Amino acid sequence: MAQTPKMVYQFDEGDARMRDLLGGKGANLCEMAGLGLPVPPGFVITTETCRAYYDAGGRFPDGLWGDVQSYMSHVETSAGRGFGSADAPLLVSVRSGAPISMPGMMDTILNLGINEQTVHGLARLMNNQRVAFDAYRRFVDMYGRIVLGIDGRVFNEILDHHKAQAGVTQDQELSVDQLRGIVTDFQAAVRREVGAEVPQDPWQQLEGAIDAVFSSWNGARAITYRNARGISHDMGTAVNVMAMVFGNLGDDSGTGVLFTRNPSTGQRVLFGEYLVNAQGEDVVAGIRTPQDISSLSQVLPNVYTELEGLANGLEAHYRDVQDIEFTVEAGRLFVLQTRNAARAPQAAVASAVEMVGEGLITREEALARIDAEDLASLFVPQFQSTEKDRAAPLARGTGASPGACAGHVYFDSEAAIAASQEGINAVLVRPETDPEDIGGILASVGVLTSRGGVTSHAAVVTRGLGKACVVGCEEIRVDLQAREFVANGRTIREGDQISMDGATGEVFAGLIPTFQPDLEQQEDAQVVLSWADQSSRLGVLANADTPDDAQRARAMGARGIGLCRTEHMFLGDRVPLVRQAMLHAAEAERWLQQPHDEGAPEPIDVREYRDALAQLHKLQTDDFIGILRAMDGLPVIIRLLDAPFHEFMPDHDDLARELEALSTREMPDAEVEREIQLLKLAESVIEANPMLGHRGCRVGITFPMMYDMQVDAIITASIQVQKEGLHPRPEVMIPLASHVNEMTWLRQRLLAVIERVQREASTEVHCPFGAMIETPRAAITADQVARESDFFSFGTNDLTQMAYGFSRDDAEGKFLRFYVETGMLPTDPFVSIDPEGVGELVRIGVEKGRSTRPGMEMGICGEHGGDPRSVTFCHEVGLDYVSCSPFRVPTARLAAAQAALRG
Amino acid sequence: MAQTPKMVYQFDEGDARMRDLLGGKGANLCEMAGLGLPVPPGFVITTETCRAYYDAGGRFPDGLWGDVQSYMSHVETSAGRGFGSADAPLLVSVRSGAPISMPGMMDTILNLGINEQTVHGLARLMNNQRVAFDAYRRFVDMYGRIVLGIDGRVFNEILDHHKAQAGVTQDQELSVDQLRGIVTDFQAAVRREVGAEVPQDPWQQLEGAIDAVFSSWNGARAITYRNARGISHDMGTAVNVMAMVFGNLGDDSGTGVLFTRNPSTGQRVLFGEYLVNAQGEDVVAGIRTPQDISSLSQVLPNVYTELEGLANGLEAHYRDVQDIEFTVEAGRLFVLQTRNAARAPQAAVASAVEMVGEGLITREEALARIDAEDLASLFVPQFQSTEKDRAAPLARGTGASPGACAGHVYFDSEAAIAASQEGINAVLVRPETDPEDIGGILASVGVLTSRGGVTSHAAVVTRGLGKACVVGCEEIRVDLQAREFVANGRTIREGDQISMDGATGEVFAGLIPTFQPDLEQQEDAQVVLSWADQSSRLGVLANADTPDDAQRARAMGARGIGLCRTEHMFLGDRVPLVRQAMLHAAEAERWLQQPHDEGAPEPIDVREYRDALAQLHKLQTDDFIGILRAMDGLPVIIRLLDAPFHEFMPDHDDLARELEALSTREMPDAEVEREIQLLKLAESVIEANPMLGHRGCRVGITFPMMYDMQVDAIITASIQVQKEGLHPRPEVMIPLASHVNEMTWLRQRLLAVIERVQREASTEVHCPFGAMIETPRAAITADQVARESDFFSFGTNDLTQMAYGFSRDDAEGKFLRFYVETGMLPTDPFVSIDPEGVGELVRIGVEKGRSTRPGMEMGICGEHGGDPRSVTFCHEVGLDYVSCSPFRVPTARLAAAQAALRG
Repeated sequence: MAQTPKMVYQFDEGDARMRDLLGGKGANLCEMAGLGLPVPPGFVITTETCRAYYDAGGRFPDGLWGDVQSYMSHVETSAGRGFGSADAPLLVSVRSGAPISMPGMMDTILNLGINEQTVHGLARLMNNQRVAFDAYRRFVDMYGRIVLGIDGRVFNEILDHHKAQAGVTQDQELSVDQLRGIVTDFQAAVRREVGAEVPQDPWQQLEGAIDAVFSSWNGARAITYRNARGISHDMGTAVNVMAMVFGNLGDDSGTGVLFTRNPSTGQRVLFGEYLVNAQGEDVVAGIRTPQDISSLSQVLPNVYTELEGLANGLEAHYRDVQDIEFTVEAGRLFVLQTRNAARAPQAAVASAVEMVGEGLITREEALARIDAEDLASLFVPQFQSTEKDRAAPLARGTGASPGACAGHVYFDSEAAIAASQEGINAVLVRPETDPEDIGGILASVGVLTSRGGVTSHAAVVTRGLGKACVVGCEEIRVDLQAREFVANGRTIREGDQISMDGATGEVFAGLIPTFQPDLEQQEDAQVVLSWADQSSRLGVLANADTPDDAQRARAMGARGIGLCRTEHMFLGDRVPLVRQAMLHAAEAERWLQQPHDEGAPEPIDVREYRDALAQLHKLQTDDFIGILRAMDGLPVIIRLLDAPFHEFMPDHDDLARELEALSTREMPDAEVEREIQLLKLAESVIEANPMLGHRGCRVGITFPMMYDMQVDAIITASIQVQKEGLHPRPEVMIPLASHVNEMTWLRQRLLAVIERVQREASTEVHCPFGAMIETPRAAITADQVARESDFFSFGTNDLTQMAYGFSRDDAEGKFLRFYVETGMLPTDPFVSIDPEGVGELVRIGVEKGRSTRPGMEMGICGEHGGDPRSVTFCHEVGLDYVSCSPFRVPTARLAAAQAALRG
Repeated sequence: MAQTPKMVYQFDEGDARMRDLLGGKGANLCEMAGLGLPVPPGFVITTETCRAYYDAGGRFPDGLWGDVQSYMSHVETSAGRGFGSADAPLLVSVRSGAPISMPGMMDTILNLGINEQTVHGLARLMNNQRVAFDAYRRFVDMYGRIVLGIDGRVFNEILDHHKAQAGVTQDQELSVDQLRGIVTDFQAAVRREVGAEVPQDPWQQLEGAIDAVFSSWNGARAITYRNARGISHDMGTAVNVMAMVFGNLGDDSGTGVLFTRNPSTGQRVLFGEYLVNAQGEDVVAGIRTPQDISSLSQVLPNVYTELEGLANGLEAHYRDVQDIEFTVEAGRLFVLQTRNAARAPQAAVASAVEMVGEGLITREEALARIDAEDLASLFVPQFQSTEKDRAAPLARGTGASPGACAGHVYFDSEAAIAASQEGINAVLVRPETDPEDIGGILASVGVLTSRGGVTSHAAVVTRGLGKACVVGCEEIRVDLQAREFVANGRTIREGDQISMDGATGEVFAGLIPTFQPDLEQQEDAQVVLSWADQSSRLGVLANADTPDDAQRARAMGARGIGLCRTEHMFLGDRVPLVRQAMLHAAEAERWLQQPHDEGAPEPIDVREYRDALAQLHKLQTDDFIGILRAMDGLPVIIRLLDAPFHEFMPDHDDLARELEALSTREMPDAEVEREIQLLKLAESVIEANPMLGHRGCRVGITFPMMYDMQVDAIITASIQVQKEGLHPRPEVMIPLASHVNEMTWLRQRLLAVIERVQREASTEVHCPFGAMIETPRAAITADQVARESDFFSFGTNDLTQMAYGFSRDDAEGKFLRFYVETGMLPTDPFVSIDPEGVGELVRIGVEKGRSTRPGMEMGICGEHGGDPRSVTFCHEVGLDYVSCSPFRVPTARLAAAQAALRG
């Protein structure tokens, strides 16, 4: 027969390495007990037992209760008190403690063991009746809420009623008798609500509390929290049972929290708060204002000295900044908890560098303990904090793209673009955005929408651009006709100023100044990232479409541009040119592909088309010159036009209305004719499923002159930059191939263009030619596609859409959020790459591609490139680089190092 | 050094097995020469040489010309004439001949070797100046067109001019001098057109002709033909050079074509035509009416007897019906060609059965030589042929779904449905159709659209339904306002009768009676299919959604229903009920998923929702009862609701207009309120990419009561049918899963429904639960999905869309047709499964699925299931069955046997 695993550990039986089994809190309590620190006696029920509890359908596994009873007797012995003893009663706390910290997410019960008898013994021990009955009152409240599931308002109402009757406002002002009365009323309320009462038997209390902690693992709050952080639902929680100590026995008692270093800046000083004559929950309740920890050196100098030694010892032992909870009971210090401190990203970086300097940890340990995700927040614009503290939010939505911004409100792209051209900071406010709004988004410092979630169009685009964005802000009502929005009774008109925090989702009225942190100003981060680069195998490139972005990417340490999209170069003031080209494209391309006599006159369509393309060619050449200059010496992977035509067209309904209006006015025929043509074109490019439609290289193959023009501009620009003595490194990337034949055809045609431009300029420019792997078929047939590709870049956004059959635009509101929140999907596959499905396609693509072309260079571009978990996947699957938004480059650099160090 | 392969074969050097190298025609000429049959002397240039010609950039490979010259000297010897000899000139024909027959697709040049000198020698040999000069005239015409690329109208105009001048209407009436004048004018025209002339040197003529035949392999016509048939572009053509024989030397000369059996019925009689004193091209030109082959027995009895012996000999030798071309030159019989006869499917089946009966071939050979694709055409409605022969088409479009139909024209679904309810055969005529029209399509006997191609909505849906469909009929102009269409000047109004042939694309005015062939009437086909079933490993099931379809499927030999779609059951007169359910679904499902007190009153949304679902439940139960009865003892795989909600909604714009109209009229508030709700709902279900949106099991998970209702109806129906003493075998299939968790969740929920219904009825019904594998991710993670699935059915339509990233609705007109026509894609992946990409996903799905659940039953459903090449793939990949439209079941049964026999 298999031996039953050990279910309960006394504190001195475990250590910090047993985090998975004992939870973070329990493992640390054991570790401290092992170090001989003053931890109250207690024990831990393992996470394994929690899983067994669920396997048994929510019942204690066999043997658990016996173990708990025998371990309680050890605690009684150590504490010198008896559980349920009328004379010297032992009270205990029962707390949850998962392997991964989930602050505030699960439940705690204090003062357990108190009842009508023991409360008197406690009063005698404490020499304080009021404190004893207050503890009883608090216990009934907590047990009622947590174990019996009673709405906390029931107890609050009773308490308020008693305070009103007594004519007092503070809990501490209640007398012993009043507290007795409250306990009686609480018990009556419990009977009324659930037809039972809070048990008098301490053992029954304990059983209920342990059961409640196990249950809280699968409470709604805890599940939501784990979903949001991508934490597995399978681990279970440990249960910590510990003798209570009391910080509310007089002025030589108290309770406090301290950090061994400043958690905001990383500065090496004790940092924390202390409250005299109080229990921990008083600190949390915020009724009395705690004092700075340094005050303790005056009040209880011996305790303060002991605490200093203890803090240094724990930091040295754990080799990381500690977050310590302690209580002083009648002049005696107890440590209740220690853990690695949660720190602002700034502080995490600073203290990591400092600790390496102190020789406390190695560089590799420093890299491992900084949260790569958090690092990104250092590089988005931030409020000058004192200003923000003064403002109260006007409304609150979902923070969709971090960073602060401030500017004037505009309700459509045209207005935002016009404002931005006058040098005004615009904030685009819309019910929601669509691809038509890209010009307005580009022209704005931030975007606010009343609808949509974190994967809505606005959210996705702004995250890519590193611009602030708040979505789903249902507290505002946008009135596009009136050009205003109303938020909680206040009206904001077009042109008024607002400020927003894209991390917290807060929206403020008026201007709050912001500043843009820069890697060069962040010396500690620079140090950490230089270590990171030494440890990583994976290179980090950036996605950048403009010279400014390219410069920023370079400053952030990008080793090149992994994705230069050319769509944006077709928008804004270039739209009329693009439309001119599109109006004639079909006819012109057909004529050009047919044989015709030398010198035959070209039809008007061809001439108009050539003219528009020539003008676009000039503009594109300038675009590429700027980008290639900024990335001198580094690769720039340029993706040819990917967008479907309809993205460049006016809205069909608008156009139809405009046409109707035109028809009633006196107008030159030519103008009406052009509108009719545009209407027909707009109609012809409507697609049922544009995501799977006429886009990517399908446009380049059916309208080859477009791609010819782009490639010509790339090579022309490179030759120009080369003449300036610089070293341009352009690469041409083909989007959305699904069959090798598409690559064969385009490669042959476009290499001919490259050769022609070089020949005409009598110069050579090296320009690799590769494929973006973003359809499942391209991944599955990568061995074939590799025959015609010098490199691969996996486009995991589209690959995710097609592998799941999820349209990103549609899925979010309709079912994806539901899937993620209920755990139907372990994570949002658009945020973090799905390793089993989409990732498997990448793995197949890598293996098959390199089977044809050993050592072929491969990377990914798109948002996954800036997500630490996805970066780890890319490292493991053998990619050469990831490419992400410039402001996420530090995150990716660190994540790449962490992946290498783990592997 | 590698030896140069043999490039030229004299006829007696090859045989019929060398088809790949010598082409079909050449190999058969060699075979006949080897059999000692009277074949004129000649030789074949190999297909390998053609490929070498292309590899060399369109030049003769080294050594070819020398070989041709030396083989010509053998021909001169055999024929006893000299190439270019003024006295006894040898003329030759030069013809193409590919390994696969491509009738009429490539080029032939006759009378080659004729010039100003040899024409006189020929006249003397023939004793007929007119015939000689006529041959010369024809040669210049042919050479000018084929080798020099001159538009044939140039020659026709000259000929017409001369005939007008001479006052004659027939070519044969032209005098020798007139023919001379024509040749002179022809040569002048050639000089004018191309600045060269038809060479006088016979060797130069020969070189040009061989080059032209090679080139014709990649001519536009040939490429289009090969694309349409899925023939590889890599094979190349052989070139056959053969001494000319003349059937136009008098009444003891002539030319003819014969089949060894009747090609329409398979009856065993000589069947063919003979034209006295004529060359082969006269037969083709159709100027003179040929006589029945039997007439030859009177005219030239010896030749007829010789021909009979030859026909029997060839059929016995080739063990298949032969299609023979022959010429009689002055009483002497020459065989010019023999090949396996192209036959009407009817005849192919009949003669195969007959030949097995005669012991000529084995059953396996019989199965191998019937074209499975053709077999389908036996089972669609057909015109009573004599009627059709009398009518001239009104217009011609693209035949998109075979079968004939006749009915009254209606221009929208409502009208078609109304007509059909009155028992009128409706033909739906639209510019194009969309999913809204499904009701109209179901109610009609055929669909005609002026736009769209063979993968348009109308085409796809009708093929699935086996209904006649003509698409892209640009000759008709549909005027929906006027409710009429105009075709070539003739106006057809709503209610008028038309008839259509969905195979040929012909549209006729008026009614042409049709009849529906049935497997039971097709005795020969039944025999063949019973042999097929004995040879196959793959089972054939059918897609059927109604009891009628189910009955038909069974009659066609389906072994069950592989895909019973429930979408259609939500359409037609049930739409109001479905909309009622949808109006309340979101609110109701939310309320139902929350905990609430026992006995709490249900909100109105829940009641309305339950009410609509209850009514749908009753209707669905009846649907399933009918189907399960029809398929007594056979499996019926029922796919739960897959369609996105918007398919059940009225058009949003229509609704908005209706609402506007309502608002100006006096109306009960409730009605306006309902319209407003519908409008909001219609707005909320609009999706950017519905194909990748809120559909399939995503609907079943977010609105679980819908699936509960369907599963309840399935089990309730099964229990009812079981009570009748029958053996229902329902299976539940979940559409569009992409993650195993979706299956886990639904399985748990729906098995509980099944158990409840069984418990309530105290009866058991076996009901397997499986997944439709149609997202790439489901295939890639099939090992996980298989944990929760009793069976898999690969939905290769959606899998193709997602693997390629092609929206079927959008791709066709925008780029897919272009891709297929230019060979960018080897075949249309929606017609025949793409083995390398989509097929690889299926292969991965099969392997991974069976790694979890060995022996797991797997099949495919969707259109690929009725495509013979795809059936072969399914056999090879180890599937258990294919499921296809009922009328394609015979095709699939035969294809399954052919796949097994090949493997």
